[in-house]
Amino acid sequence: MKTYRKELWFNTTRRRELINITPEVERCLHESGIREGLLLCNAMHITSSVFINDDEGGLHQDMEVWLEKLAPEKPHSQYRHNTYEDNADAHLKRTIMGREVVVAVTGGALDFGPWEQIFYGEFDGKRAKRVLVKIIGD
Amino acid sequence: MKTYRKELWFNTTRRRELINITPEVERCLHESGIREGLLLCNAMHITSSVFINDDEGGLHQDMEVWLEKLAPEKPHSQYRHNTYEDNADAHLKRTIMGREVVVAVTGGALDFGPWEQIFYGEFDGKRAKRVLVKIIGD
Amino acid sequence: MKTYRKELWFNTTRRRELINITPEVERCLHESGIREGLLLCNAMHITSSVFINDDEGGLHQDMEVWLEKLAPEKPHSQYRHNTYEDNADAHLKRTIMGREVVVAVTGGALDFGPWEQIFYGEFDGKRAKRVLVKIIGD
Repeated sequence: MKTYRKELWFNTTRRRELINITPEVERCLHESGIREGLLLCNAMHITSSVFINDDEGGLHQDMEVWLEKLAPEKPHSQYRHNTYEDNADAHLKRTIMGREVVVAVTGGALDFGPWEQIFYGEFDGKRAKRVLVKIIGD
Repeated sequence: MKTYRKELWFNTTRRRELINITPEVERCLHESGIREGLLLCNAMHITSSVFINDDEGGLHQDMEVWLEKLAPEKPHSQYRHNTYEDNADAHLKRTIMGREVVVAVTGGALDFGPWEQIFYGEFDGKRAKRVLVKIIGD
Repeated sequence: MKTYRKELWFNTTRRRELINITPEVERCLHESGIREGLLLCNAMHITSSVFINDDEGGLHQDMEVWLEKLAPEKPHSQYRHNTYEDNADAHLKRTIMGREVVVAVTGGALDFGPWEQIFYGEFDGKRAKRVLVKIIGD
């Protein structure tokens, strides 16, 4: 069994941002030389997310509106976590979007359906944060 | 290390449907001959879901009502994604329900608690769509 | 390839509770002797959750309020599942929080960012319930 590990770093200019990281993850997979196995990709921070969905700008705007409806940022005072912080909403948004994805590796490629793309979801950005890629297999 | 891969296809008659796919997934596991390892089961489409919950009709009706409250289908015009599509709500519903499950394989069986069952959650159906089963182990 | 399996049991005094189980999961990992691989930790019940977030009491209170807003327990009569049960809300709350986490194992340790902690989320407690830890790797 082979294993591979890499950290991807992101520093967004806005508080919230969705970034398509599929090419970076594919680069990791090729670097690993693993042809059959499982790939884990997870946010290493608890105010950001890794998820799979469509790379379509209108949908990303819908997600921003929707997450603000389900877990609004403001007023900051509505959250007890925000006594010393202002990012309680980011913890909740990431809960909805998910921490991680597990992807099948088949024939040396991400085993994806036609529109699947991996995104980094930043909900409390403007600072350097990490994503982990771990691959196991043969 | 052994690996196994299979696609399961679904074509629902309704736009939204929940289907218990546990027997199909168990069939894959037996076919694989793998006795110890991990099984990944994921939707290959971004408007459907694979999740684990109870096989109880009342709960499934509750889920339909609940998802329509959190991410309503109509009016279609409320979503920017729906300029060319009408399924933005399906992308959001699948986000809540999740893309994938990872299940332990122990002694050649799905290592489940008493009520765990695997479901395919279709949120934009009436066309052929796929689920991936990937198993790794010994 | 090595594999390891253990059940962790919980019996909460309140209906809903969040418990940091990171030390127990780390104990499992050390017991397994596995240094490189993947660790799956999942609720074996469909009214509870395993998730990763911050060990901060204010945030946990925010989560309780937030989950009660998105999937309120009462009135029990609002859910069809509650004809014979009273825990439909717990099935929905666990759906938001997630069934499982998959964690990378690197150098014999959980490969975590600075604040990642594993929680058992109980949403229908006061009875003995289980979490599964399954580890595969070398």
